[in-house]
Amino acid sequence: MTTEYFHFLGILGVAFFAVSGTLLGHEKKINGFGVVVVACLTALGGGTIRDVVLSQPIFWISSPDYLLSTYAAIIGTILFIRYMPPLSNYYFIFVDAVGLAIFNIMGIEKALIEGTGMIIAITMGMTTGIFGGLMRDVVCREIPLVMQGDVYASACLAGGLTYAALFSLDAPYAWCILGSVVVTVVLRAGATRWGWRVNLFKKRQAAPSDKEQ
Amino acid sequence: MTTEYFHFLGILGVAFFAVSGTLLGHEKKINGFGVVVVACLTALGGGTIRDVVLSQPIFWISSPDYLLSTYAAIIGTILFIRYMPPLSNYYFIFVDAVGLAIFNIMGIEKALIEGTGMIIAITMGMTTGIFGGLMRDVVCREIPLVMQGDVYASACLAGGLTYAALFSLDAPYAWCILGSVVVTVVLRAGATRWGWRVNLFKKRQAAPSDKEQ
Amino acid sequence: MTTEYFHFLGILGVAFFAVSGTLLGHEKKINGFGVVVVACLTALGGGTIRDVVLSQPIFWISSPDYLLSTYAAIIGTILFIRYMPPLSNYYFIFVDAVGLAIFNIMGIEKALIEGTGMIIAITMGMTTGIFGGLMRDVVCREIPLVMQGDVYASACLAGGLTYAALFSLDAPYAWCILGSVVVTVVLRAGATRWGWRVNLFKKRQAAPSDKEQ
Repeated sequence: MTTEYFHFLGILGVAFFAVSGTLLGHEKKINGFGVVVVACLTALGGGTIRDVVLSQPIFWISSPDYLLSTYAAIIGTILFIRYMPPLSNYYFIFVDAVGLAIFNIMGIEKALIEGTGMIIAITMGMTTGIFGGLMRDVVCREIPLVMQGDVYASACLAGGLTYAALFSLDAPYAWCILGSVVVTVVLRAGATRWGWRVNLFKKRQAAPSDKEQ
Repeated sequence: MTTEYFHFLGILGVAFFAVSGTLLGHEKKINGFGVVVVACLTALGGGTIRDVVLSQPIFWISSPDYLLSTYAAIIGTILFIRYMPPLSNYYFIFVDAVGLAIFNIMGIEKALIEGTGMIIAITMGMTTGIFGGLMRDVVCREIPLVMQGDVYASACLAGGLTYAALFSLDAPYAWCILGSVVVTVVLRAGATRWGWRVNLFKKRQAAPSDKEQ
Repeated sequence: MTTEYFHFLGILGVAFFAVSGTLLGHEKKINGFGVVVVACLTALGGGTIRDVVLSQPIFWISSPDYLLSTYAAIIGTILFIRYMPPLSNYYFIFVDAVGLAIFNIMGIEKALIEGTGMIIAITMGMTTGIFGGLMRDVVCREIPLVMQGDVYASACLAGGLTYAALFSLDAPYAWCILGSVVVTVVLRAGATRWGWRVNLFKKRQAAPSDKEQ
């Protein structure tokens, strides 16, 4: 049953990220099949890096479902954009946050199955969650979301710790997933809404000399 | 014989992309060995990703011919730039298009040999063709060619479909290759010359509110 | 003993690059855990690509020491930045150069152990040394150090040739390492101090028409 959950989560995750890639591509006025390239990169990039690093077969080569889900999400989003009223940027943040939360869990899970320790598993979760969106932003010449100083990698980390905590309490698998996704998405959405920030360099940021530098 | 063709195509493909990387590096005023780095990334990047994703040994580690071809093309291009009249930008587009066409075929071919279905094979062809140039453009801080909205990924896709069609008609191998390369290069060159575009978001692009956004 | 040296060098190399990633992240005003992401990418990126290309298990998955060293270096640098006087940019150049020199050697060494020829080994050394910093600069939207035309890839190449020369003269392992690191760091620091450059395109650069282009 775990495997089925895992497969379903993956199908869902690539679809969310494919939507986010298509939305950003459209916003950046990329037209033609370049949008498909950036959406595929977003949807499949993080998981590909995860599988490469864990020396596993690449997930979208093993099962064509992932590619079909990606292409279906891209086509759906393009049709939506063509025929429906424009969406606010908030939907982009939300879709990206759900993709982040799902891939975070999948990275942790797959690393644990490979028998790594928890510190490596949490690092792999963040890698899987963050890198698809990071490559999307780099290719679109945006300031990467993860570098903008909002709660992003922190939300991912909090979701990962939630998953680890629930898992070690022997909570049912669906609860572990749901708890982790809710924590990540709520932190990310709340941070965007109310401007929460995590300051690691508090002292320097507050200094008046900061502007000159 | 197929293996020989394949090897020869690869040698040719890396040379074309090495030239395109050197040309862009020169245009961006990168001097010193940074040009060699960007040219190697362009020439070897797409195929490296292909081999990693297909869990194959990396092509330029298995056979040193590819590295020698890359370095020879870089040195030749540098000498040409130093001692010959400047080239128009059109040559860059052409060289990049031939590299794209060749690597597209090689990606499809190698995926099919690994036993993947046609949808994955065509995706792998586009990955192999597009990613070397994409990394070149990202590292040089250019708007990636594939994101500029000209016919680029579309030309790659058309070349891939041509290859698949000729292949399934049992055409001789040389014809499959030639047909696919001609389709890709002609579409790409024609699009650059006459400004052909593929519009996926027709409705929004035509809207007058587009400018404000 | 060679294995121990190798392990120790790796621990040291990731720490240097983690410091350089944290420093650049701070300079670019990335706050929150985005800094951790960019520092990890810098510290682990080059070696990860090396291991993937050589079809080896990824070094930081096999042994958690590397991740611990990375995180310790990040935390140390953050504390230093918070509570100590600001550092000049020269420290960043120096730390980056030491990381470059160490990973250069590790790439060459690991390729030779895998039985590749010297031309592939030197290419792998440059890949390992350069790519962590290259990804750091791309993600931070800086002009990559390796593309700025200073002595960078050239210093890496000179360090690699020094290592190869000392190695073939049967010098003790510690001397090979020390000689190579000194050559790379001195060339890099000297180039920054006195503006040395390697000009591959001398003729065009000197031309008066250069400005218009």
